[in-house]
Amino acid sequence: MTTLHLNLQSNGYDIFIGKNLLKDADKFLNLDRKVLILTDDGVPQEYANAILSKVKSGKIVTVPTGEGSKSFDTMQLVLKEMCDLNMSRRDCIVGVGGGVIGDLAGFCASTYMRGIDFYNVPTTVLSQVDSSIGGKTAINFNGVKNIIGAFHQPKAVLIDVDTLKTLPVRQISNGLAESVKMALTSNEKLFEIYENSSLNEILENIENIIVESLKIKKDVVEKDEKESSLRKILNFGHTFGHGVEAQEEMHGFYHGECVAIGMLPMCAPAVTERLIPVLKKLNLPTDYNGDIDGALSFVSHDKKCAGDKVSTVMVEKIGDFIMKDIALEEFSNIVKKRFNQQ
Amino acid sequence: MTTLHLNLQSNGYDIFIGKNLLKDADKFLNLDRKVLILTDDGVPQEYANAILSKVKSGKIVTVPTGEGSKSFDTMQLVLKEMCDLNMSRRDCIVGVGGGVIGDLAGFCASTYMRGIDFYNVPTTVLSQVDSSIGGKTAINFNGVKNIIGAFHQPKAVLIDVDTLKTLPVRQISNGLAESVKMALTSNEKLFEIYENSSLNEILENIENIIVESLKIKKDVVEKDEKESSLRKILNFGHTFGHGVEAQEEMHGFYHGECVAIGMLPMCAPAVTERLIPVLKKLNLPTDYNGDIDGALSFVSHDKKCAGDKVSTVMVEKIGDFIMKDIALEEFSNIVKKRFNQQ
Repeated sequence: MTTLHLNLQSNGYDIFIGKNLLKDADKFLNLDRKVLILTDDGVPQEYANAILSKVKSGKIVTVPTGEGSKSFDTMQLVLKEMCDLNMSRRDCIVGVGGGVIGDLAGFCASTYMRGIDFYNVPTTVLSQVDSSIGGKTAINFNGVKNIIGAFHQPKAVLIDVDTLKTLPVRQISNGLAESVKMALTSNEKLFEIYENSSLNEILENIENIIVESLKIKKDVVEKDEKESSLRKILNFGHTFGHGVEAQEEMHGFYHGECVAIGMLPMCAPAVTERLIPVLKKLNLPTDYNGDIDGALSFVSHDKKCAGDKVSTVMVEKIGDFIMKDIALEEFSNIVKKRFNQQ
Repeated sequence: MTTLHLNLQSNGYDIFIGKNLLKDADKFLNLDRKVLILTDDGVPQEYANAILSKVKSGKIVTVPTGEGSKSFDTMQLVLKEMCDLNMSRRDCIVGVGGGVIGDLAGFCASTYMRGIDFYNVPTTVLSQVDSSIGGKTAINFNGVKNIIGAFHQPKAVLIDVDTLKTLPVRQISNGLAESVKMALTSNEKLFEIYENSSLNEILENIENIIVESLKIKKDVVEKDEKESSLRKILNFGHTFGHGVEAQEEMHGFYHGECVAIGMLPMCAPAVTERLIPVLKKLNLPTDYNGDIDGALSFVSHDKKCAGDKVSTVMVEKIGDFIMKDIALEEFSNIVKKRFNQQ
């Protein structure tokens, strides 16, 4: 088991990563109070049950799986449950599931009584390597992803890698895309693990990969809690990636798959050359044949776009990055050139 | 004109108090960006127009006056307007109105893109002396006042006391109740101004009274930004007061009137003796003949009630206070005794 401590200005917290941790949830989380456990119907119910069995007084609330639950409607359903439980400022929410649950549970916790404790128990690779730490919570609104939310740091994060055993392979790759993203901007050694291991070796080594990915994210978040500068490197691949995601949602693209597509135009040719075989190994896309103009129109609505400028992160050398505000038109050209649609 | 600076750990801000300041709003607020001005239809439209005339690119959004606008429905209407204006993280909201507008505008600003700038331009005594500073924003939900919200400090507060000229006298008294509250716990000299002045003298002296009241609140907020301890003194009179308010809403009691009622049981007899003539002078209630049990039932749902204990603030000597967690039953007895309903 590994414990990482995230140092923040006010409220730092521990991240526990290991095998078979859920059964000892009360050793890591203070569950001796009212606890609302939020999960979704795509998460094996046994995980939420494992937490509930350690709780003094609590309830599991299950919402439908998928981005659709990151809405004001679902948020109000959860808050209503919290009111009905007569939860006080001293009580807490535990989110058990992927990024959707983390975002929703965290945002509910941040607004109920202006903020109560939130524990994150991520059960997917994507949420374990990425969204579980950093305190970004959000819902979608008016067709825009994550437009409404709060910075609300969890009180602790409990990562039981055994929960990945029930995860489909495509979902594992989906999460590893974020890990590859972090390796590209910040840790060449981690990238080399992806280069030099078979897919099976990667899966066997997943606990270590999660820890190494979290160390990168932890370092970035500690230096820039509120995303004023450095933290933007975590958006590498996400600008066009979110555009693709918004565009392709109905076709069932996963977030990590869109990030894979989004990273490609932002890399120097020598980097792309090394990136493509890794993406292929992980069964992630290496090309995009969809409607680029459609995806780009979402970019101009994205938070990362202020005025006519797009904040971009580019990788010219693995393990390093460049941040640049470029004109929307230039950004469009770079993307179109990459995917031969110019 | 007086400028107070609120010193906070991260983002302190200025509070400008004076006459005829609205016409120079752009000298105090950075309006050189997209600005959504939120107001309600009970506020003279000229105030929002004065701000709009100083804005580069912006829009006035007017919601219905009253607590009903502190809802998820109205919040979503405002956020929709922000999306439609394609506002970025660098843009801002200006709230022009009373506490409802400050709470709603502040909460919208805190959640849009996880937090954008918010300027508060309070136009009532109540919001000028109290809710405009401190960063508490909220909406009501599930029948509970202020249960959903955020701590989101304004970027600056602009108090133009000339806006009070259009305010009904009852609304002025409503606000002064909060000032009397602060004097009771923290500043005997300010209380003596209320004791030794006629109502007319108080009204003539209102700019000074607002400044003195804000100094008390500023001091408390600086010491306890997130309401973990000291800040609870600002809840003096509010525990039973909120109960009365929830109970009597349909009968049109004002917030300050409920606070006046709520303070009475929490004072030692010698304090009550000096308080009652002041409340009478301000046309605030000095007795409560309503349904005390009904009001108390709201207390047990209140944020200030954790488990069976009620956090109370008592004043045994003017300018000083005692904080005490007491059993709900004891609290009920104190209240009933005060209003001769035992």
